[in-house]
Amino acid sequence: MEFMKHPYILISNDDGPRANGLHSLIEVAKEIGRVVVVVSEEGQSGKSHSITVKTPLRIREEKRTDDVRFYVVNGTPVDCVKLALDQILDERPDMVLSGINHGSNAAVSVIYSGTMGVALEAGLHNIPAAGFSLTDHSPDADFTLAKTVVRNVVEKMMTEKLPDRVVLNVNIPAIEPDAFKGIEVCRQTYGVWQGEFEERHDPIGRPYYWLTGYFKNNENGTPNTDEYVLKQNKAAIVPVKADLTDYHTLQKMADWKF
Amino acid sequence: MEFMKHPYILISNDDGPRANGLHSLIEVAKEIGRVVVVVSEEGQSGKSHSITVKTPLRIREEKRTDDVRFYVVNGTPVDCVKLALDQILDERPDMVLSGINHGSNAAVSVIYSGTMGVALEAGLHNIPAAGFSLTDHSPDADFTLAKTVVRNVVEKMMTEKLPDRVVLNVNIPAIEPDAFKGIEVCRQTYGVWQGEFEERHDPIGRPYYWLTGYFKNNENGTPNTDEYVLKQNKAAIVPVKADLTDYHTLQKMADWKF
Repeated sequence: MEFMKHPYILISNDDGPRANGLHSLIEVAKEIGRVVVVVSEEGQSGKSHSITVKTPLRIREEKRTDDVRFYVVNGTPVDCVKLALDQILDERPDMVLSGINHGSNAAVSVIYSGTMGVALEAGLHNIPAAGFSLTDHSPDADFTLAKTVVRNVVEKMMTEKLPDRVVLNVNIPAIEPDAFKGIEVCRQTYGVWQGEFEERHDPIGRPYYWLTGYFKNNENGTPNTDEYVLKQNKAAIVPVKADLTDYHTLQKMADWKF
Repeated sequence: MEFMKHPYILISNDDGPRANGLHSLIEVAKEIGRVVVVVSEEGQSGKSHSITVKTPLRIREEKRTDDVRFYVVNGTPVDCVKLALDQILDERPDMVLSGINHGSNAAVSVIYSGTMGVALEAGLHNIPAAGFSLTDHSPDADFTLAKTVVRNVVEKMMTEKLPDRVVLNVNIPAIEPDAFKGIEVCRQTYGVWQGEFEERHDPIGRPYYWLTGYFKNNENGTPNTDEYVLKQNKAAIVPVKADLTDYHTLQKMADWKF
């Protein structure tokens, strides 16, 4: 049973206004509801949940067609959501969609990700939301399969109510559509980035450091973790929430006497 | 029973190298162990868990005394932790401490906070960590009570082992030490920022927007939430973890058929 019909959809991302992933997401969303896009003018990978405190923000309307209004902001992805809700939109959106990100946001990447910052911020305002990511960093990545998954997940979000403040982290494997094995709901893999910097030297010999490194999966081969699910040629959906409390530890710490 | 003696302590913050809160934290830490400080050269409030992807980073050793080494980095608080672990420190620290932040990081502020970005990043590397914040934004805030709380919490962290990857979000009320009622372990309050932007106009009449707004506590008066605990003149400790999976929803979503 649909509880949402022709939803009012806010879209944002962290790869800038010209990213193919963004335009793939808009294409799908336009077929489902009314669309307003509010995105950062520049790519914002790794911006996490950051907000702009020290400088003021500007909003530029880039284009307005019959089915899409498109705004650009000189801030972070989370700023875009805040400005949309507080200043740009004339009514509360039914749904916030983010992406489609060029590159995975599975495992711990969820906390570094601007794409997921968008979805989590919407969740704080109790608006149903999802961030979508394809495990291919290339600007020319093929979003054919990703668009099918987006459509499937969004239609599900229109019939099944997510619990309060819970949003979806949806990662899609970069594979041929024929090889796709379906969608699995799972949990965040525990892993951490290692060997994170490359040291180089500038022309006058002073060192500088580029962020790089590799992801070390500490739960390799563990079923129902997002990294494992992706390796099975499935899309991985992790329900996430911006409540960082570790409830298990909360009970254990009752013994701590200060 | 102490499992940690004279710990090797990494300190960072998000208020820059000259903040009183940082130097208050260093004072306490020096009495407990060996200290290395790695901080952003500029204030980084609201930087959350963001990392620097597009530009290289520089490390500058600012001073080295018998008991403290002090480094400054042109990146975010999380960059500081990553550079410290990967490039600066000669051995793995026993503990990472962040702050003392000028201003609260209770409730939802935990996800916008650079101070807590530091602690959560340490947690990903499974290093015991805590972020400390005083509920007073003033650069001249009085850290007398805060220092007592820091000492108390750090000593506890040396005798009680935190569960894997769990770190502490410690908020301290800005009150006279005499009025202090102790420390309580509790959970993150649910609330959200409202009315977030102030519209102004520049000299040629174009609008711009400053982030502002007020925190709306959606659980006002609920015991054992961090905002409530602070109002009781207590310090609030929330055990937090960078696993955003909502496990309750994970079970419920088993019914979703895609």
